[in-house]
Amino acid sequence: MTDNFYMLTWNWLADSPLLAAATEVTTKSDGEEGTFVLAGVLLSLVIIYFASKLGGELCARINLPPVLGELVGGVLVGVSAFRLLVFPESGSLAEDSLIINLLQSTAGMPTEVASSVFASQSEVISLLSELGVIILLFEIGLESDLKELIRVGPIAAVVAVVGVVAPFVAGTLGLIYIFGTPVVPAIFAGAALTATSIGITAKVLAELGELGSEEGQIIIGAAVLDDILGIVVLAVVASLVKTGEIQISNIIYLVISAAVFLIGSILLGRLVSPLLVGLVNEMKTRGQVLLTGLVFAFVLSYIATAIHLEGILGAFAAGLILAETEKRKELEEQVVPLADFFVPIFFVCVGAQTDLSVLNPAVPSNREGLIIATFLIVVAILGKVITGFTVFGNPNLNKLAIGVGMIPRGEVGLVFAGVGSASGALSEATEAAIIVMVISTTFVAPPLLRLVFKETETATEAVDKVQE
Amino acid sequence: MTDNFYMLTWNWLADSPLLAAATEVTTKSDGEEGTFVLAGVLLSLVIIYFASKLGGELCARINLPPVLGELVGGVLVGVSAFRLLVFPESGSLAEDSLIINLLQSTAGMPTEVASSVFASQSEVISLLSELGVIILLFEIGLESDLKELIRVGPIAAVVAVVGVVAPFVAGTLGLIYIFGTPVVPAIFAGAALTATSIGITAKVLAELGELGSEEGQIIIGAAVLDDILGIVVLAVVASLVKTGEIQISNIIYLVISAAVFLIGSILLGRLVSPLLVGLVNEMKTRGQVLLTGLVFAFVLSYIATAIHLEGILGAFAAGLILAETEKRKELEEQVVPLADFFVPIFFVCVGAQTDLSVLNPAVPSNREGLIIATFLIVVAILGKVITGFTVFGNPNLNKLAIGVGMIPRGEVGLVFAGVGSASGALSEATEAAIIVMVISTTFVAPPLLRLVFKETETATEAVDKVQE
Repeated sequence: MTDNFYMLTWNWLADSPLLAAATEVTTKSDGEEGTFVLAGVLLSLVIIYFASKLGGELCARINLPPVLGELVGGVLVGVSAFRLLVFPESGSLAEDSLIINLLQSTAGMPTEVASSVFASQSEVISLLSELGVIILLFEIGLESDLKELIRVGPIAAVVAVVGVVAPFVAGTLGLIYIFGTPVVPAIFAGAALTATSIGITAKVLAELGELGSEEGQIIIGAAVLDDILGIVVLAVVASLVKTGEIQISNIIYLVISAAVFLIGSILLGRLVSPLLVGLVNEMKTRGQVLLTGLVFAFVLSYIATAIHLEGILGAFAAGLILAETEKRKELEEQVVPLADFFVPIFFVCVGAQTDLSVLNPAVPSNREGLIIATFLIVVAILGKVITGFTVFGNPNLNKLAIGVGMIPRGEVGLVFAGVGSASGALSEATEAAIIVMVISTTFVAPPLLRLVFKETETATEAVDKVQE
Repeated sequence: MTDNFYMLTWNWLADSPLLAAATEVTTKSDGEEGTFVLAGVLLSLVIIYFASKLGGELCARINLPPVLGELVGGVLVGVSAFRLLVFPESGSLAEDSLIINLLQSTAGMPTEVASSVFASQSEVISLLSELGVIILLFEIGLESDLKELIRVGPIAAVVAVVGVVAPFVAGTLGLIYIFGTPVVPAIFAGAALTATSIGITAKVLAELGELGSEEGQIIIGAAVLDDILGIVVLAVVASLVKTGEIQISNIIYLVISAAVFLIGSILLGRLVSPLLVGLVNEMKTRGQVLLTGLVFAFVLSYIATAIHLEGILGAFAAGLILAETEKRKELEEQVVPLADFFVPIFFVCVGAQTDLSVLNPAVPSNREGLIIATFLIVVAILGKVITGFTVFGNPNLNKLAIGVGMIPRGEVGLVFAGVGSASGALSEATEAAIIVMVISTTFVAPPLLRLVFKETETATEAVDKVQE
């Protein structure tokens, strides 16, 4: 076959809308583009899994938590490095995406559909990543112990509140008095210091096998409460920026709805769960345990989203409730492959969206930001580490580990930066500083957490040896 | 709290773009809409699983294949009945979707974002459904036996070719001579009779435990070949409609690329798979078997899509290749929950997109279509059933079962109707007739298949009893 003939055929194929439809015989999506969106999503998933395994395996070998490797793998394929996986939200265009270029060169995608395929593919991958963190929190809930969480509840509440107040006050006052930052952006930056990324902490704890420990349950409990406090803080700061005053009614609404949702879903859920188990036992078709569990989790996630809380709170509550049923083990086993599929999408996307260019000190405008960032990082770490020392009760607890577990700001902190930037309240330097602080705390927490948990183990082993 | 206060708070919440962003702390999607898209997808999944389990469990109880129940469940929640799950491709608007209405009434979604949220949510669900059929074919490949498939290859090839030629010739000539249909639409309708929906047949076979039987492997082999033949037939017919002549070069390209792809991927895959197994054995992090298998499947699916074949062919080939490795069992176990998650989305969406209004004889314009449809259904069923009797070799084979296994046209047939309608070659009556034929063959095949396989079993049992 000559090249010419091949090209002719190829052009005919590429030009024919009818044949493009033929390649879609099983898809029935909207016209020609659907095939390319599917192809783009398949390529994205291949890249995501490759990045997550490359990073994860390397980290596992140098004794760092694999999830850190997934984040770094994400950075490598993302906007900061190879630009395979980029998103329109961070200002990238279709021609910036290597995946779109690959689709054009290997699958004959015409240029005119490039931007709409890019938008659709990014939309789908973002949504898979959101499902990833929902399924992660469902799994964490399944592995948690509701009774233990209630028992450590008061401790976790103190940890959460101190972990919000301390970095907020220190950060805001420091910016005002040391750096002369105006009040509103200082409050915004202070607020960004309050967040805790439950996803990253929970994943590291699970990897260390410490999720079930008392420290682990305190961290998870405090991180969940922090998530709610974070929503409240953001609402307060946002209303302050918008109207110049704080709306008490809104704070009350948020606090009450969060409390009603969490307590209500757990109480109602415990009534409903025996019915679900009974239903599952009656079912005869495949996947009955998994799908019933997921439907329960998705319903609670939907309710949480609908009342302006977060979907992951609902998924976590569903996991907690179902962990108390006889189906826990079966459900846990079936959720594992699903989590293996979805969760890396979340972590790699977080990494891929992290723009490391703000860290480049060669750019003059970055320098002011980097100096503020250094201050914010110190406050961010110390402000959370001290929370561990507020823990009362059991003196054998690893207090340092609890504080360290609250360090990562993750994607939660980035939203503060994004909202602040959109409201025009933040200077470029302050925004960059917040982003640098978020990146640093997110990437430093996993290895630190492993370190502080190792120390306990070594200490405990030493004590065990002495006692033997 | 008074209603008024509640409404005030609610309005404040709904109006505040800042707070809407706050509810997205883990999502980072594009602005306010992202949260509603996530909420819409969660609701859609809840509805899909509810429909699939309701239909599946009912069918399992009246001794019909569960997958038929998933299709019927899809019809119930789809465009023909409750309109919970509708798609823009079938002409539905945002206000037709009950999910969008629910988002507006329960999650306070503003009307102005309704159509873009509807478009995004439909896009994501369509893509999940496409991933569903890819994962289904990967699973079917894993459960198939390459050696057995090669052994039954010649038989399957005859079944596939006869199953394409017989209904095509009978349908086209019948329409021309009995109904006086013009030549081009008659050829189009004849071509629509050639398809086989591998998804539905394979799922029913798996449910009956007949996937591994010789009949099962002949059906799967023939259905895969039919899928390729279907692409060729559609390309030929489309070029005939477009240019009035048949482009031999294109047919040659498609046939050669399909053959090169299938044979090449299996040969190369057998060389690569020991390396993959070696790699997996070196890995230390979670999900290594599943993700390596999926990456392999997605790469082959991408290649198949890029060369204008179908993604599912690549996934099937990947499954076949990995089934020959020592990881088969582990991989099969881990794919099951993933298939439980994704596959129902595909079947429920097929049902949801089926518009039963063409079956209403009260509408005068449907009547002509229904008469033509009756003819097409007879040809569709007989044209595939006779293929079983072309089977040579083993005289103990259930020849009727093989023919019946080829009956469902499923989504493949609908694409013919869609392409024909888009090209303007089909009259409304002919298009409706094709749709009715597709619906009937798709819904009648699962119970028929169960019936004919039961008969063999009873017969075999009777023979066994006599011999005892």
